[in-house]
Amino acid sequence: MDEFELIRRYFTRPARRAVLGVGDDCALIAPRPGYELALSTDMLVAGRHFLRDAEPEALGHKTLAVNLSDCAAVGAEPRYALLAGALPDANPDWLEAFSRGLFALADRYGVELIGGDTTRGPLTLCVTIVGEVPAGRALLRSGARPGDTVWVSGMLGTAAAGLAVLRGGLDLPEAESRQALDALQRPDPRVELGVALRGIAASAIDVSDGLVGDLGHILERSAAGAEIELSRLPCAGWLRARLEPAASRHLALHCLLAGGDDYELCFTAPPSQATRVLAAGSEAGVAVTPIGHIVEGAALAVLDEHGHALDLSGLRAFDHFGS
Amino acid sequence: MDEFELIRRYFTRPARRAVLGVGDDCALIAPRPGYELALSTDMLVAGRHFLRDAEPEALGHKTLAVNLSDCAAVGAEPRYALLAGALPDANPDWLEAFSRGLFALADRYGVELIGGDTTRGPLTLCVTIVGEVPAGRALLRSGARPGDTVWVSGMLGTAAAGLAVLRGGLDLPEAESRQALDALQRPDPRVELGVALRGIAASAIDVSDGLVGDLGHILERSAAGAEIELSRLPCAGWLRARLEPAASRHLALHCLLAGGDDYELCFTAPPSQATRVLAAGSEAGVAVTPIGHIVEGAALAVLDEHGHALDLSGLRAFDHFGS
Repeated sequence: MDEFELIRRYFTRPARRAVLGVGDDCALIAPRPGYELALSTDMLVAGRHFLRDAEPEALGHKTLAVNLSDCAAVGAEPRYALLAGALPDANPDWLEAFSRGLFALADRYGVELIGGDTTRGPLTLCVTIVGEVPAGRALLRSGARPGDTVWVSGMLGTAAAGLAVLRGGLDLPEAESRQALDALQRPDPRVELGVALRGIAASAIDVSDGLVGDLGHILERSAAGAEIELSRLPCAGWLRARLEPAASRHLALHCLLAGGDDYELCFTAPPSQATRVLAAGSEAGVAVTPIGHIVEGAALAVLDEHGHALDLSGLRAFDHFGS
Repeated sequence: MDEFELIRRYFTRPARRAVLGVGDDCALIAPRPGYELALSTDMLVAGRHFLRDAEPEALGHKTLAVNLSDCAAVGAEPRYALLAGALPDANPDWLEAFSRGLFALADRYGVELIGGDTTRGPLTLCVTIVGEVPAGRALLRSGARPGDTVWVSGMLGTAAAGLAVLRGGLDLPEAESRQALDALQRPDPRVELGVALRGIAASAIDVSDGLVGDLGHILERSAAGAEIELSRLPCAGWLRARLEPAASRHLALHCLLAGGDDYELCFTAPPSQATRVLAAGSEAGVAVTPIGHIVEGAALAVLDEHGHALDLSGLRAFDHFGS
């Protein structure tokens, strides 16, 4: 199977919204009047972002999900995706499962795959996503203001716990283990929530590298600080239970505060917007939880169960470039 | 140097045309009324598309050039680029040279780098390009009609000869060798020509995988055949001279007909447009040469110096997925 046959067989579908889809030198799209386009690109490398033997259907899902999450973070509706991939070989079963996972998620959001490139090489996947957002209404990292409430969607730390399970650093009962692995391997991008938060949230980011690091980006771009409370961070009961014993506390803190791959939204909104934030969560079908607030300054303080600031220096945000 | 510092230092510049550039979850662009957006993504893998020890400034140039060439092929003006890269390490000298090569070419065309992603991994580079083309005026592969003249820009085979030099399969004098390596490592995308051909050319493609393969894509999408003449293919004198002796003929034919990396445009236009095609070439500062014509059917015939069809079966188009 050569490159062109591979693209034709697994990654070509008729264009619907696009003017021209896969199969020419470029895809063509006609922008919608009054809308801006939101673009983001993410590269996933085997052995760093996923295990080399990752189940291909879940990998297809995740490859697109991390990009949809970027759209969600700015409140854009994802419309088009381009996929570039280096593959060690052209295994039909693998490709079929990978494309099934990718298209299932794409279909859920009406996202069209409009272009791509395949080549042989160490397994590497790169999706570029194109979303639409009404002009001037995108949620930015830079909009947080002192007094804003800091919120997160869903639960934190589950995916990082899943990675710890895979790496043998955490032993969980069957059901919890499945939940953790599922969060890691099949994250649910918060697209509906991002859209519902337009005009409500003051700033937003997706939690891909861990809460401390990602909230840190909001603070940096907003020139502000924040104070959040450990006890308010939404997480699975089995993860919370591990905060107590000294033996498991560090790992639990790491998962909650610095674990990557949550793909939840962290966002801020003035306290006056609380009711609307909760309504947006309901509308999107995802829990939203206030975890603290934005303060003057530049520091991020995470208060422990006794109101003391945790030492965050040992909790490095997940850095895909780190060794 | 972590991922964020690396992006900040080498790949962040203030947004000019973009609403929002590097530094948020997505970049934002405001589409221009009356224009469509042309999008393409290309992945370059070390050891397959370039040598592992490729000179980084040239590699920065080429990484963007191959995408600009896709814009050129549809007649779009490139505006924005997103860069995702897996790097084996964060070598400041390498990064500085790579970004210098990339931005020098970007600046030549007013292309803004609006987003990206960096991660550690086997050296892999993926650019997504966004161009603008007046609605309905893009050049497509599907527009070729029997009777159209087939044209190519510049010269064919020089880059493939450069690859043969690097691989030790071709010995060239110093000046010719430099010309061949330069064509391979610093291709000039034919952006101005693509734009100038709007409304003139009936179909177009860029020659990235070799003339036979790429013209083949035009024929497939246009449901047509073509007859081209070997003696009319524009190429360097030293390459043409190698067509004669039996010992060098196969390599010369391979370079001319199946060598990748030319990044010239192959396009078709009705004979009545010949004067305008030549004027478009002059305007763009690049030679354009008629090499044959489109015929009924589906076959591509390349006629040799005696008017006999060459056997193309031994000349496989460059397939980035092939082994």
